[in-house]
Amino acid sequence: MKDYIKHNEWNIIEEGFDPKLNRISESLFSIGNGRMGQRANFEEKYSGDSLQGSYVAGVYYPDKTRVGWWKNGYPEYFAKVINSANWIGIDIVIDGKPLDLATCKVRDFRRVLNMKEGYLLREFVATTSDGKELKVQSQRFCSIVDDQLGAIQYNLSPLNFSGEIKVSPYIDFDVVNEDSNYGEKFWEEMEKSVNGEGGWIVARTNKLDFHVAAGMKCVLKKNDAVVDLSWEAVQKDKYIETYANIYLQEGESLKIEKYASIVSSENHEKLQLSTVCENELIKAVKKGFEVMLREQAAAWALKWEESDIRIDGDVSAQQGIRFNIFQLHQTYTGEDERLNIGPKGFTGEKYGGSTYWDTEAYCLPFYLSTADHHVARNLLLYRYKQLDKAIENASKLGFDNGAALYPMVTMNGEECHNEWEITFEEIHRNGAIAYAIFDYVRYTGDEEYVADYGLEVLIAIARFWSQRVNYSEAKKKYVMLGVTGPNEYENNVNNNWYTNLIASWCMKYALEMARFVKEHNAEKYGRLVQQIHFDEVQESAVWTDIVDNMYYPVDPETGIILQQEGYMDKEQVQVKDLDPKHLPLNQKWSWDRILRSCFIKQADVLQGIYFFEEQFDKETIARNFEFYEARTVHESSLSPCVHSILAAQLGQKEKSYEMYLRTARLDLDDYNNDTEDGCHITSMAGTWLSVVKGFGGMKVTDGQLSFNPFIPDQWDSYSFKIRFRDWLLKINVTQEKVEVENRSETQLTIQLYDKPVVLQPRHTEMVTS
Amino acid sequence: MKDYIKHNEWNIIEEGFDPKLNRISESLFSIGNGRMGQRANFEEKYSGDSLQGSYVAGVYYPDKTRVGWWKNGYPEYFAKVINSANWIGIDIVIDGKPLDLATCKVRDFRRVLNMKEGYLLREFVATTSDGKELKVQSQRFCSIVDDQLGAIQYNLSPLNFSGEIKVSPYIDFDVVNEDSNYGEKFWEEMEKSVNGEGGWIVARTNKLDFHVAAGMKCVLKKNDAVVDLSWEAVQKDKYIETYANIYLQEGESLKIEKYASIVSSENHEKLQLSTVCENELIKAVKKGFEVMLREQAAAWALKWEESDIRIDGDVSAQQGIRFNIFQLHQTYTGEDERLNIGPKGFTGEKYGGSTYWDTEAYCLPFYLSTADHHVARNLLLYRYKQLDKAIENASKLGFDNGAALYPMVTMNGEECHNEWEITFEEIHRNGAIAYAIFDYVRYTGDEEYVADYGLEVLIAIARFWSQRVNYSEAKKKYVMLGVTGPNEYENNVNNNWYTNLIASWCMKYALEMARFVKEHNAEKYGRLVQQIHFDEVQESAVWTDIVDNMYYPVDPETGIILQQEGYMDKEQVQVKDLDPKHLPLNQKWSWDRILRSCFIKQADVLQGIYFFEEQFDKETIARNFEFYEARTVHESSLSPCVHSILAAQLGQKEKSYEMYLRTARLDLDDYNNDTEDGCHITSMAGTWLSVVKGFGGMKVTDGQLSFNPFIPDQWDSYSFKIRFRDWLLKINVTQEKVEVENRSETQLTIQLYDKPVVLQPRHTEMVTS
Repeated sequence: MKDYIKHNEWNIIEEGFDPKLNRISESLFSIGNGRMGQRANFEEKYSGDSLQGSYVAGVYYPDKTRVGWWKNGYPEYFAKVINSANWIGIDIVIDGKPLDLATCKVRDFRRVLNMKEGYLLREFVATTSDGKELKVQSQRFCSIVDDQLGAIQYNLSPLNFSGEIKVSPYIDFDVVNEDSNYGEKFWEEMEKSVNGEGGWIVARTNKLDFHVAAGMKCVLKKNDAVVDLSWEAVQKDKYIETYANIYLQEGESLKIEKYASIVSSENHEKLQLSTVCENELIKAVKKGFEVMLREQAAAWALKWEESDIRIDGDVSAQQGIRFNIFQLHQTYTGEDERLNIGPKGFTGEKYGGSTYWDTEAYCLPFYLSTADHHVARNLLLYRYKQLDKAIENASKLGFDNGAALYPMVTMNGEECHNEWEITFEEIHRNGAIAYAIFDYVRYTGDEEYVADYGLEVLIAIARFWSQRVNYSEAKKKYVMLGVTGPNEYENNVNNNWYTNLIASWCMKYALEMARFVKEHNAEKYGRLVQQIHFDEVQESAVWTDIVDNMYYPVDPETGIILQQEGYMDKEQVQVKDLDPKHLPLNQKWSWDRILRSCFIKQADVLQGIYFFEEQFDKETIARNFEFYEARTVHESSLSPCVHSILAAQLGQKEKSYEMYLRTARLDLDDYNNDTEDGCHITSMAGTWLSVVKGFGGMKVTDGQLSFNPFIPDQWDSYSFKIRFRDWLLKINVTQEKVEVENRSETQLTIQLYDKPVVLQPRHTEMVTS
Repeated sequence: MKDYIKHNEWNIIEEGFDPKLNRISESLFSIGNGRMGQRANFEEKYSGDSLQGSYVAGVYYPDKTRVGWWKNGYPEYFAKVINSANWIGIDIVIDGKPLDLATCKVRDFRRVLNMKEGYLLREFVATTSDGKELKVQSQRFCSIVDDQLGAIQYNLSPLNFSGEIKVSPYIDFDVVNEDSNYGEKFWEEMEKSVNGEGGWIVARTNKLDFHVAAGMKCVLKKNDAVVDLSWEAVQKDKYIETYANIYLQEGESLKIEKYASIVSSENHEKLQLSTVCENELIKAVKKGFEVMLREQAAAWALKWEESDIRIDGDVSAQQGIRFNIFQLHQTYTGEDERLNIGPKGFTGEKYGGSTYWDTEAYCLPFYLSTADHHVARNLLLYRYKQLDKAIENASKLGFDNGAALYPMVTMNGEECHNEWEITFEEIHRNGAIAYAIFDYVRYTGDEEYVADYGLEVLIAIARFWSQRVNYSEAKKKYVMLGVTGPNEYENNVNNNWYTNLIASWCMKYALEMARFVKEHNAEKYGRLVQQIHFDEVQESAVWTDIVDNMYYPVDPETGIILQQEGYMDKEQVQVKDLDPKHLPLNQKWSWDRILRSCFIKQADVLQGIYFFEEQFDKETIARNFEFYEARTVHESSLSPCVHSILAAQLGQKEKSYEMYLRTARLDLDDYNNDTEDGCHITSMAGTWLSVVKGFGGMKVTDGQLSFNPFIPDQWDSYSFKIRFRDWLLKINVTQEKVEVENRSETQLTIQLYDKPVVLQPRHTEMVTS
């Protein structure tokens, strides 16, 4: 837990330079545009501790896997988010001394991430070892308008001396991944060019042969006038630089504008990359830094217009929620259905892979409500396009007949995680992928999607479940043996209630959608049935039998739903009775002790209740919430939001707010001591869920939107905006009233506190809260 | 499965050279003396495929662990059996061409492991690329009389040419371990000396600083007369060589006698190592090869006198059982209580560690019956001396009050295995260590051992179990959650019957032994109670309560003991109904499929029945044997012997013999396709058990020895020798009769087919079988 970020509504601010916090700030002040991203590393040389990170969406490295004992079925590789070319670098040398914040004295250091306009600002005064004072201000962004471009404006001004400054902008592909398993370098140079004020390098990754071109063009301005000077070029393996020496009088200022273009073979022909890169740079220079920055601010204004959450009376909460929304938009824009939302986004390299079940279970609702529907649709298409690989994955594990098991972690659809209890057993992820289709359709009403794509995925998933269960002669029920539920503090359990529930639901929903498509689009249905050899009669009968006879563990004495069979054999202790010195368990306890205990890492039974709330009466929800909340340590960042939402539904405002607080500033306050590795991007969506589905009580049932808002006592008011189908709504909640504004041109009927409210076009309805 | 070893009663014979089989033969023809061991690598250069292996007992390397995801409680290292100096090397160059079986033509190749006299013989004729034929015969052994010495006699004779032969004996510490996780070299040179006909190197291991000196002295004989010539010395890092050029006429012979001494800091002062090494070499040269070889044969004759098993009418079975007995004696002699029986002995480097529960569960009975009692006692003392580390290990996992968890794999008492489901959960190993004390005392009658050492270990183990269970309010019983039983095809199960049974037995036995020592040796008892803070009243009460209220899963319908809770929820299939193409499961099935299936890797419930047979009536044994044998795939080499013994007890002779066959020639026929990694040393003891406890029906009950022999139909007769307390017995079983010979000077009463038989001194009793 740290508290060095200044509270501010629209900005993330660090004042003063503390090298010990540098890696954390590098994560927090990351910039990105969905296509590329960059940690807040310094432009100038920095010999202190730093995690260099520059990432290109979709470009990864299949690192050699490291395991102790190999299990059959493990994948051959682990997909690493690859650290790509350093494009921000501008080395500065003052009369022969390098500008390096690790060796200079530093004052007036300030870093600002301007979320409203989408740029990073940094300023400081550095004093070299011979006493020369230099004032520096740098500003940079990854353009969300031209998403293959980054731009930097780097300002220098000697405060107490006149002298020669050497300026060396460069592009460097000779970079490493800190988490590479065997210390390998992943990039290989293909070609490069450097002359005058810029140049480029095309490099390829080993093994997968991704090609990336990174280029730069630089403009120097002295006292705001362009300086035309002769640059000198330097070339090394995987490195180009162009440097110039400029004499500055005390008080003069030098402005270096560095435009960088990063283009990859994911989007262009390999042989065209250098040309595309050069053209992008020409475009950038032509627009110029100021124009690009204005466009950036305008584009961000549009995003905020549709997705901002405003909180009055609590600056810290305001900053937290905006930071989360900002990072989510920086990570994924939904313009490319091959991309997804990595757990660290573009803010770090840890975990690898880009896609976990986080996407479907947590992130999808955020993008559904805050962006055009094609964005969420592309998240679904990502999985649709990887269906073949999910079928192949299942077949490797011994399943057949087109059964699909989506991977736990992936880049391109192949599994790249190897821990048997997760890879092979945390199969509930398959359920989340089916649920996302349901969630998307219910929210958008896009039923065509089911016929075109959804049903094929649903059938493949249902086939998996129908093979994964077995009939227990002992129980006279279908059972699901050897799984890991969402609560990863249990492994290889039998009959995890959540998994059994969602498996059964998948089969039921697949059958329902099959009937739906057959009825509404017989032709498409017929084509699909043929293509995937769907034996409607036979397979339906099997699935129905399983659905009707699935085993669900329940405690006979209390009626509590059991997380898994045998849960009640554990010693029943509550988190409140734990000596706090034992927390967090994942650092303090041995793994076997964690496994044996009743403590829960993240919502499991409650995740099921959250997903399928309509199936449970309030008493059941309350009883199980009380039971499981008391045993949950929330050592996954994905946990508290679910508890927050359920608490809100149960009217437990304080608990709901407490759970919200655990997620809202997770990274800003470095709650888990791991922000240095990168931000927890996917769990940021959970924070949004806490506000909109928790406090706002938003739901869609049978195509109808409803709200049940409350406001935490600590706030004066809050408001959020959502898109729902063709409507854009703004919901404003104060301690006294709830206002719902229909910003669209057509009328909409919603439920507010369980009563129908007609929202007239361009009108605001108000009720007391 | 291979079949290239010639069947022979006393020798392992390979005829003809097949490079593809070389690694397998290198394992099979290994030699060792309990202090050092050597794979059957060639003396001369060999550029073909080979696993170089030379091992020094007790010297190991803590290799950096490789895991995917770290779990709290994992050890920092994995102890590797370190490949030590190559002391056998003698390079031969004929007129400038190296003798190398990978490049020469080879005929009349023959390798013989003479088990009766304990040496390895190899002969062949090699033709160099320029057509020169050389006949070679080499003979070598690791002396069991002088266990720091090895000796080689290497004979050369040009068949069709006269020419210059360069002979280069060397010592090489610049060796690698193939299974090192990060390709590191483990040895570092300290000092060396080479001159005249020999020299030595002292090297140390990184990290643990073991020092080993390896030295050599060579004698050359031409046509059997010693040649006095000037050797030339060569030195490189970690390498010494001394070479000579000798002109040989066609038909002449050259004999190179190379004596090697390997001494380690485990047994000598580091600074004395080179001196000790030199003195050993002087002793060896003085004795000479022929004398040493005669002593070797005599010493082996003594070992065979006490442990041979003779089988008439089945040469292949005869060879198999002798090979197993021979390898067990080569691996462990029981002279040093710091040593133990590694899974590969001195025949390979795989698995690492030297001690698994195999030692107590399988090997101890072999050494109990075939060697002086101090040998088995030293196996027990090994664990006693490591009790502190077992207590430390348990405390790392969260146990207290002196509870001990012995490691799954160890060299020095520290755990060095990291797979959570094994390291933390396969805790039944603790039970085997307690059981070994019981087994030792019942066999030897050495009750003093309990007071001096055993009780302390038993209490520490009982303390562990009493903390590892928890009281289930749901069951009103004590349960043991999250364990892996002997059947490693199940992980993290609840209430593994075997583990619950042996845990409960440990507590009961600890209490019984505490009472026994208190009664018979109050003083020692009092000292121990104080030293380990044993709260007799309180702890006894807790243990008794657990013993009285332990939960044992049983199928209510059939009365079958359940391997673990929920076992009957699995789809019940039998091995006979499996398509053979699915076998072995560990190669053909994904791990999750194995885990979910009902198939059993190795005896689990049946292991418990085998250990505690007297607790079960014949019907119970038969019912459970039938049930579990049908589901067991025996994919551990430790499994069939237990089934063989139980089948024998149940009178299922054919099944018993079938199970015996699966173990007897496991390595000789490379049954599991992995003999190239080394031989399955510990499971060799299982083969011995099958004969003596299975076919022979040997048991000790209340201090009395009994036999219940039968003979497989395929054999004419078999006999085995055992030591029992002060008696040496020979049991001979034919199709018609059983003879028991008392080879000692005092009378002994045994049970034979459940009837008392008095064995007069030096007499043989006979009954019909």
